[in-house]
This record gives sequence, C-alpha cells and structure tokens, in this order.
Amino acid sequence: MLSFESDYILGAHEKVLEALIKTNNEVMSGYGNDIHTQNAKNLIKKACNSPDSEVYFLTGGTQANQVVISTMLKSFEGVISAKTGHIALHEVGAIEYTGHKVIELEAEIGKLKAKIVEDYLKNFWSDENNAMMVVPKMIYISHPTEYGTLYSKEELTSLRALCDEYGMKLFLDGARLGYGLMSRESDLSLPDIARLCDVFYIGGTKIGALCGEAVVFKKGEAPERFLSQTKQHGAMLAKGRLTGVQFEALFTDNLYFDISKNAIDRAEELKKLFAFRGYEFFLDSPTNQQFIILNDEQMAKIGEKCRFGFWEKLPDGRTVVRFATSFATTKEEIQALAEII
Amino acid sequence: MLSFESDYILGAHEKVLEALIKTNNEVMSGYGNDIHTQNAKNLIKKACNSPDSEVYFLTGGTQANQVVISTMLKSFEGVISAKTGHIALHEVGAIEYTGHKVIELEAEIGKLKAKIVEDYLKNFWSDENNAMMVVPKMIYISHPTEYGTLYSKEELTSLRALCDEYGMKLFLDGARLGYGLMSRESDLSLPDIARLCDVFYIGGTKIGALCGEAVVFKKGEAPERFLSQTKQHGAMLAKGRLTGVQFEALFTDNLYFDISKNAIDRAEELKKLFAFRGYEFFLDSPTNQQFIILNDEQMAKIGEKCRFGFWEKLPDGRTVVRFATSFATTKEEIQALAEII
Amino acid sequence: MLSFESDYILGAHEKVLEALIKTNNEVMSGYGNDIHTQNAKNLIKKACNSPDSEVYFLTGGTQANQVVISTMLKSFEGVISAKTGHIALHEVGAIEYTGHKVIELEAEIGKLKAKIVEDYLKNFWSDENNAMMVVPKMIYISHPTEYGTLYSKEELTSLRALCDEYGMKLFLDGARLGYGLMSRESDLSLPDIARLCDVFYIGGTKIGALCGEAVVFKKGEAPERFLSQTKQHGAMLAKGRLTGVQFEALFTDNLYFDISKNAIDRAEELKKLFAFRGYEFFLDSPTNQQFIILNDEQMAKIGEKCRFGFWEKLPDGRTVVRFATSFATTKEEIQALAEII
Amino acid sequence: MLSFESDYILGAHEKVLEALIKTNNEVMSGYGNDIHTQNAKNLIKKACNSPDSEVYFLTGGTQANQVVISTMLKSFEGVISAKTGHIALHEVGAIEYTGHKVIELEAEIGKLKAKIVEDYLKNFWSDENNAMMVVPKMIYISHPTEYGTLYSKEELTSLRALCDEYGMKLFLDGARLGYGLMSRESDLSLPDIARLCDVFYIGGTKIGALCGEAVVFKKGEAPERFLSQTKQHGAMLAKGRLTGVQFEALFTDNLYFDISKNAIDRAEELKKLFAFRGYEFFLDSPTNQQFIILNDEQMAKIGEKCRFGFWEKLPDGRTVVRFATSFATTKEEIQALAEII
Repeated sequence: MLSFESDYILGAHEKVLEALIKTNNEVMSGYGNDIHTQNAKNLIKKACNSPDSEVYFLTGGTQANQVVISTMLKSFEGVISAKTGHIALHEVGAIEYTGHKVIELEAEIGKLKAKIVEDYLKNFWSDENNAMMVVPKMIYISHPTEYGTLYSKEELTSLRALCDEYGMKLFLDGARLGYGLMSRESDLSLPDIARLCDVFYIGGTKIGALCGEAVVFKKGEAPERFLSQTKQHGAMLAKGRLTGVQFEALFTDNLYFDISKNAIDRAEELKKLFAFRGYEFFLDSPTNQQFIILNDEQMAKIGEKCRFGFWEKLPDGRTVVRFATSFATTKEEIQALAEII
Repeated sequence: MLSFESDYILGAHEKVLEALIKTNNEVMSGYGNDIHTQNAKNLIKKACNSPDSEVYFLTGGTQANQVVISTMLKSFEGVISAKTGHIALHEVGAIEYTGHKVIELEAEIGKLKAKIVEDYLKNFWSDENNAMMVVPKMIYISHPTEYGTLYSKEELTSLRALCDEYGMKLFLDGARLGYGLMSRESDLSLPDIARLCDVFYIGGTKIGALCGEAVVFKKGEAPERFLSQTKQHGAMLAKGRLTGVQFEALFTDNLYFDISKNAIDRAEELKKLFAFRGYEFFLDSPTNQQFIILNDEQMAKIGEKCRFGFWEKLPDGRTVVRFATSFATTKEEIQALAEII
Repeated sequence: MLSFESDYILGAHEKVLEALIKTNNEVMSGYGNDIHTQNAKNLIKKACNSPDSEVYFLTGGTQANQVVISTMLKSFEGVISAKTGHIALHEVGAIEYTGHKVIELEAEIGKLKAKIVEDYLKNFWSDENNAMMVVPKMIYISHPTEYGTLYSKEELTSLRALCDEYGMKLFLDGARLGYGLMSRESDLSLPDIARLCDVFYIGGTKIGALCGEAVVFKKGEAPERFLSQTKQHGAMLAKGRLTGVQFEALFTDNLYFDISKNAIDRAEELKKLFAFRGYEFFLDSPTNQQFIILNDEQMAKIGEKCRFGFWEKLPDGRTVVRFATSFATTKEEIQALAEII
Repeated sequence: MLSFESDYILGAHEKVLEALIKTNNEVMSGYGNDIHTQNAKNLIKKACNSPDSEVYFLTGGTQANQVVISTMLKSFEGVISAKTGHIALHEVGAIEYTGHKVIELEAEIGKLKAKIVEDYLKNFWSDENNAMMVVPKMIYISHPTEYGTLYSKEELTSLRALCDEYGMKLFLDGARLGYGLMSRESDLSLPDIARLCDVFYIGGTKIGALCGEAVVFKKGEAPERFLSQTKQHGAMLAKGRLTGVQFEALFTDNLYFDISKNAIDRAEELKKLFAFRGYEFFLDSPTNQQFIILNDEQMAKIGEKCRFGFWEKLPDGRTVVRFATSFATTKEEIQALAEII
C-alpha cells in the first residue's frame, strides 16, 4: 500500500546503509571514541562553517530536546516554546520530567513571533513579583515547525537579538532540518543557523538514518561533562559508531542536502497535485509535510489505497490529514497518488 | 504606617498565640505524634462533617501544592490549572520541579470554567496521538482564586462531575479558604467542599496562624506513606506541635470562621469606601482582596501613608493595586484609610 | 512523665517565645523582608565573625539539607556522606529525590575520616572510567554527628584541605550545632566553622526555637536566586518573621550559647549518673545525646517513669537507647532520673 | 590491531545486518507498530516460555535500567543493588537522577547474596524509625555480573523468595544475558529467568545487535502506559523497526544462543591459554569476560599488539585488565593472542 504516513516509514538511505555494512567489521572503541564518529563531527562542523562548535550524537528528537534543555538550564530556569511546539505538546512532558517549566506562548502556524516573546519578557522583567516565577532562560523553536512552516533569516535574527538582550539561549530543534534548508522558501543556510543559535540539532532519523540526531553547540555552550550527562540520561550508545557512521555518510558528498531536496521536490509535486484536484489545504507549508482537509468520503476512498497521518478534526466534521514526503519518496509514488485522489 | 499590603503582615491571632504560650512547656513527641495535633485533626474532620477524611499539616501553600500534587500523580500525569493559577504562575515552577506538567487553560477572572476543561478533556481523549501527551489526572483550583473570586456550588459540582467522568482528582487550594467561606456571596460550606473535592487544604498562614495549612484527604485518597513522603519533600516539622496547636486553636469555638468573617466585613467597608470615593475597580471581588485601579498621582498620594500590593500595569499607564484585609484588620484602620484616599 | 526522648519535646525557649509575643502585632512585609529577619542575619554574621557571609532561614533540618545540596550541585554531581549520615539514612532519600547521589563512605562513630575520603577521591580521579560515575563535589558532615560525636579543628581542617585540593564544597549540618560548640571537648568555635565550611547551618529547632535553621553561605557560595529556589522547593515561609524573630532572640545576649551550655551541663550530670550506677555506654559522646545499653528488665523499669529514644537492638538482645538533654532540661529532671535508674 | 577491549567493538552479527538490509525498504509505521517488532516480541515470549509476558525494546543498558526502575517504583521506594552493581557505580547516577535511592549492599565477586539482603530487610522492617527511610521495593542484579560471575538457580530462587516475602520486585539486568545462559556453569535457562524475575532484559548491544535491549515484564508487571513513559524518558525510537528487526533476527533459528555460545567457547580457549602461560587471574569467571593481573612489563608488551580493558590498579602496583570475547570473536584471534602473550 502507498504510504505518506510520515517521514520515518522506511529504513535508512541506501548510502547510509552501505556505510553501516562497509564498516561493520571494523574494530572501534565504544561511546563514540572511533574515527568515523570523529570524522562525522568534523564534516558537520565544516558544513556549519563553524570549526569551533562541538558536535554530539543522540538517537532521537525527544531525547535530544530533553538532554539539551535539562543540561543547559538551572533548576529554576524555564524554556519558552510555542504552544504547539513539540516539547510543549507531544513529548509526554519530557522536559517537565527533568524539572523544568515549558513556558508556552501563542504561536502563528507553529512559529514563535519575536513580538510575542518580547512582550512576555518585558512583562516578566518588569514584574515586581518575578522572584516567584520561573526565569525564562531559553527559547525553543522547531525549524521546520510541527506545521511544516519556516522561520526567515529576519525572524531568526530577531529571536537571537532577544536572547542577547535578555541573556537567553536560542535552541533550534531541527528534527527535519534538511527539509527546511532545502525548501524553496528558505533563506537560511546551515552556517546561518550555526551562527544564530546557541545550540541546535540536525535530524537524521527523519532524513536518511535509522536513528540519530547531531547536536551542535556553539563554542563555549556545551554543558560541562556533556557525555557523562548523556549517560546519566540513558542516552549514550555503547556502539557510538551507529550514529557516527550514519552521519559520516550523510555529510559526505552532500548526501544530506541532496536527499532532503528530494523530499522537497516530491512535496511540491504532491502539493500541485492536490491543488490541481481542488483539495483544500489547511495551511500553506513550504516543506515536506502537507496538511490537507478531507471529508469523510475522501478519507475513506483515499484511505483504501494510501496511508496518511491523522492531524485533527475540524469543527465542521472534516479532518485535517498530513501527507509527508521524505528522502525516499519517488516520482512513481506521486504518480500513484495521482491515480487515487 | 497603615498597611493593606497583604493578609500575612501580622503574626498570629491572639488566641492562636495564647495556645502556643499555654502549651509551650508541655512535653510532646515529635512529628505530630501529640494530642494537640490529634485533637486539631478531629476538630477539622468535625467541621468538615467528614469523619473518614485524613488530615495532615504542612507549613505553607506552595509546599502544600507541591507535596499534594507530586504524591498523588504518577510521573506521566499532569494537573490542569487556570493560566492564572498560583501553581502555574507564582511558585517558581514547584510542580514542574517534581516532574509534572501544569496544563494551563484559559481562566475567567481566576476561575476555571467547566466548559473549557471539558473541551480540553474531550479533545485529549479523542486524540489518536495522546500516547505522546501528558495525561490530565487532576484539576487544581484555588478558592478564593488569586483574584479573590469564588466558585459557586454549581460550578464546583460541575468540575466534580468532570473528574468522575474522566477519572481525575479534584484539588482545591484553600490558602484563603476562610475568606471564601465567609463571603456573603459564597454558597459553599466547608462540608460541601470536603464532599466535592478529593483533597483540599484549609489555609492557616493567611488566616490567624504564624504558619500552617491543613490538608484534608477524602477517605481513601491519602497517598501511601504520606508522612514519609512529606519528610522526603523536606516538609515535615520536627516540632509538629507548632501547626497542631495552632489549628487546634483555630478550630475551637468557631475561631477560624469568626476571624475570617472579620476580614470579609472589613473588606466590604473598604469596598464601599473606594466606590463611594469614585475609584475604579479592576474586578468585582467578594472576598478579602480588592483590586483598585490607581493613576500615578493617586499611587503617590496614598502610598505616602498606606502600603498596598502591586498587581499589574495597565496598557493606559495606570496601575492595578491590591488592598487586602485580614483576620486582624480593624474598623479603625478602615477609618484611617478613609482619611487618606 | 519524665522525658529524655529527644531534644525537641518542648516548645520554644521562653525568651524566644517572648520575642514572638512582643512582635506579634508589628506590621511586617512577607518572605523575610522585615527588620527582625534582617537583624537576625546581622547578629549571626557577627557571631560568625564573617560579615560577608549570606544568611537564610529555613524551617527544618531535612529541608535545609535538601535545599542546600540540590541548589549547590549540578545534576551529575554527588555528595559524600558518612554511611550513618542523616542524609544517607534518615531523610527518606530527600537528596536522591532531587536527583543527586549520596556517596556513602564508612564512618567512625558517625564521623567521616579524611583518610577514607581521600582514598575515595584518589581512586575516583585516577579511574579511567570515571566519566561513567557521579562526580564527588561536596562533603557533607553533621556536627555533632548523629552519634553525638564531634570533629576536632584538625579533622575539619583536613576535610577543608581535601575540598580545596579536589574542588569540592564542605557542608556542615549543624542541626545541633550549639550543643557541639558548647561541649567541653570542642576546640571549634563558630567563626572557625564559618571559615572552614562553604556552607553550614545553625540549628534552631532543637535549640530553643519552635522551628528554624539558619543557613550560612560563605561569601560567593550562595546559589543564584536562592530565595526563588527556596520557594521552588516549597521551603519559603510567607511569614518569614517566624524564623527571623526567633533567631534574633537566639542571637541576642548570647542566648543560643547559654542555653546550649545548659544542655551540655545537664548531659554531663546525666552521664556521670549513669556511669556511677554502672550502666554501660554504647559509645562516648561529648554532647547532649547519650547512648546507653539497657537489658529488657532495665528498659521496662525505667520506661515506666521516663521516656527515652530507641536506637538499635544489639545482637546480644540488649537495646541501645538514647537519652537527650536540651536547652530546657533542668537539674530537677536529672535528680528525678536518679530516683528511677 | 587485535582487540579484546570489550564485547561491543564490532557492528552487528552478519545475520542481524542482513535482516536490516532485507527489510530496509519495507514501509512500516513508527514507534514499534510494525510486524517485525511484533514478531520479535512473540519469538522472545516463546523463547521465554512465557506467552503472557510483555516485551518492549529499548536502545541501551543504562536506559533500560533507568526506565524500568523509575517506572516501577514510587518516589519513596528504592532499589537494592550490589555495591559493585552497574546502577550503583557506572551509570552517572542515572537512577538517582530519576529520584530513587540505590541501596548499596556488600557483594561477593559482583553477586548479591540472599543472606545479606535478608539481614538488611529484617533490620529495616523491625526498625521503629523506618518511616524516615527509603522503602526497599526492588532487588537489582546483573547476570552475568560486572565481574562475569553467575547466579545459580538456587541463588536466584532465594532472592525470588525474599521478594515474595517482603513485597518486592526482582529485576535482572541481562546486558550480557546470552553469555550467562550459554556458560558451561549456568544452570539457569531463559524460561527459569522469566519465571523467577518480575522484569529482566535480554541484552542485544553486546550480543550481535547494533543497539537494543529487550525488556520482558512478567504478566501484570508492566507499568501503566509504558510506551508513553518510555517517550517521556526520551527512550523511544521513531523507527522502532531498528530494534524490532534486529531482535527478530537474533531470535530466529537460535541465533542469539549460538552466537553467545561462540563467545563462551572462545573465552574458555582464552582462559586456558592464559592459565597455561602462567598468568594470574583476578577472579574465576565462567563467562566471556576474563580478568587477568598484569605487571607493567606485561602490560606494555601485550599492549603493543593487542587492546584490552583497564579494570583496576592493585595495591602491589600490578593492574587488573579485562579480556572480553564476544559473539564475533574468532579462533584465529585466540591463536593470534597466543603469539603475543
């Protein structure tokens, strides 16, 4: 059956898999003390144009969010997030589990607007009773957002400026970063992001890897004894090679960007296809996740031959569903979809 | 200088103080294993018309909120609160510190409306992805609220019904409970509250005691080894007599209710006074906290001779301030205020 | 019935109670923003001969241990304690509850010996795998210990030296500090302790107060936003005056030391009495807690007229019990005991 | 260079890798909702002869320990472990990080003896002050232990009996379980372990997988909403297939046991070799980890051509090192070692 259910329905990109196969019988020390992990870190720093950054590998997005936030914040500090942010909504309170408040602000199609954050910060710092409140110390954004939308360079720069003004850290959740970077509407490069954020991660799980996220700390921002803290969170792989080898492959010969581009190209075809057939879009997404409004009949008919993701029910009874393309989506699949919708 | 800054600007009510003096040289075992603590518990159960409840004493409101919520919830469960609720806003994230998410919903002048909670719960339980979300397991309300407003019996009954329907606990923060019970507008008695809530507390710190809140668990609701867990939170007094003796005095000869009534009577005089002089109220509060809007000139003039609490700045530049009466406010103080405003 | 059950069986010392009575009707702002609290802090700093220290008040010993340790350590750092230390054994895991390991080392009659700590530290720092281990960052000692024993100036200086060498904090739990300072065998003064420790507290609950411990941080050691963090732990009193006024009284006219001396004098009389009557001591304690070994017959006979504390069963069937004198023990009580044993 | 540094120096067993390759392009839903994961669970339940068990996959040992312990215990409950247990020593306090005390008892070459546990439990439950102590609610053992030693069926049965008597859970950390099961000295089968333990895990990372541990809960023992809690710990893979497919391969055609047997066979050859050459063993291990005592000269000489693990320094200056065989060790490697030592 055809599936656009999510961007993690397949295994690894073939070149990533080949790298695992090729290195499988190499002897490597554990915990990332191996040359492939080292090489992967160097390739990423180069792609970020940021030789002084520090790179670490974790296995998944929620884990990356939890480890980064809990190791960068003190116990009385909280993290600002869009109400619709992944950490606010869909991680079973993983941040609160480590003792930190997620300060939820209104979002615009998944995005945190600088004006809203600034108002919050001004209010907070002028409040005579703020000694009774959690100190906002970090801004968390996802890019692309949970709705597939993107921050512009101007918007990210505004958030950076707020962080500078109020002594905060800027953290970008890039679980789908490649799909953001390769979007036609993006004016942000990887070096821009590395320059503007204190910490961010480059998602592998959804872009070509079996698992893995590469966390990039700006110079001086990596928490003390970070590997130890990773271990304390149960987040360290004994065979660190698993993520190292995969990211080495992803950042060799532009692979990460090329396969991200594939998802974007297919998404645009899919978008045109739905538009041409007169379907209504829930919102305008420039990345690999497309949100379509279906009535029950359409749901049933398409659902017979194609899987997609449930998003939400609308008050009028119709349903918002998500079609996600990925590094592996083929032109043939888009054509097959055309036969169905 | 005259002060309406808060309801905790003085020491204990004289009868509470006398009880401490009178029992000071009695030998008592520690940790609440004394007859005065036992007697206080019985008096409270009687006042609640709830002989099967379990009563425990803690020292303050934030502590009571933290200990109750963290001992009643499992790690993946969260507590619903009004956005303006004390636990959401003014406890430095004490709930999150213990690992639990505070699920913030919109409030109406401090109150959580059943409709809004119900919508949230319906959405949650019909969401196919709720395995990724914190389970709402408790409703937290404050009564009176942080804005001095009150739940009606009908409103509290509606929240109780939601808790029954969705398998949740109802927790009422009664840091100022006496002032709510004695308000002319209250149709809720202490036995009503004991019947409708799974757990609540009767505030002493703001109503006649030096410190102390009496937590009342409905039969079967007290967490396992609750005293041990209290100790684990650093919340157990070696000299448990300190809270026991004070609550024994407060619940002897109707003292708690009489002195709460005093605050309400004085608040009504204060309210009439401000109204008569043409001041604008920020909201209509039926309890001991009154919120008045002052311009800068008024702020300065009144501030010379009388202390009050800062609440918030209005967009038009004026300031909302709080005048709080208490168990100890005298008619003379209201008259003195009349000379000033 | 006569009672030597513990040193917290009575209320406050009369002068402490008088201070509470005298100030009861003074208007004071909350959370310790009052002149008595301010004055108490100054008096303590003076007694410590340490004008640059910072002083804060908490309500009890476990709370003080929990708040101090969890706010001074990072999440991957642990605290070294004697196996028999209060935090290791009798606080229901209050330290672990905040996420920190208590590293338990062997003790000698309650005391942590520098040699044992040093061996541990040497091993730790020379272990190639210590990235997988909790970093020892603090030494916790109680003085007097749970067995009533005392550290000498030389011993405390040795622990200080280890802290300097290995980048650690020295924390002294002084729940019974006065009884230690006034012991005939003590060569440590309060200024010595303030000089040698990074943080310590002066116990009030067991020495004349209804509740309260004064935490003293060396210059520069107080955690960021400490009052906020206290609030986050549920450990802040709205009526901060309760601890402020009591400590003001305790540190006026040498009261704290005089009443501590009383406990020591009575303890020496009690010790002589038991020795004279041929009772066996479990250990030699120079402070207010005396540990006597009783057989069942003695237990029963003395227990009829006098309360004491259970300590532990010996393999030979006899029982170790504790007799504690306090700030309030009278010569008459010792004489009454002489009639019983 | 030859390496016996650890049992996780290579990638996956070739059949495991083949399974990943073969299934790479199959469309599968995320989070373990795929047929391979389902099949793997069934195969494991069959191998355990325990159709009512529940099986879940996690990525590593520390993560498995942390997730299992923190989701099975209440906040005031602790876990008993040998002092040398992995959770006590080498997980950076991952258990304490989740709020639980590890109660460390003396061990015999890595093993927790029932007698020592029983003494502790008897003492605890007869202690009048145990309300101030963490409740022992779980026994944690590793099998094989960190020293390669094994529990006999009789020993495991004794620990089970203690758990039954004192209302505790028995948790077996099987990071190297296969190597234990296939040891010539083992009298415990996988069904025995499934029957005697409330929860245990079957290690994959060290036995043929790239990552992955299979946690097996006895019927009724799996924590509520376990997958949600896994997500909350950051321990859920979006591509759950990664562990599902690997364990499906490991439990097909007896692979897990066959490759474990290989490690044991090679370990016995290695053991004989060292013994024949007159080397001193630090202890007698019947599994794949062998601990040899080397002097500096031997260290240097062997170290030139072969890697091994550092274990500890002896007081006499010699060093204990570890040689580990694995699922992948070849006869040729043992022969090569013979040339070196």
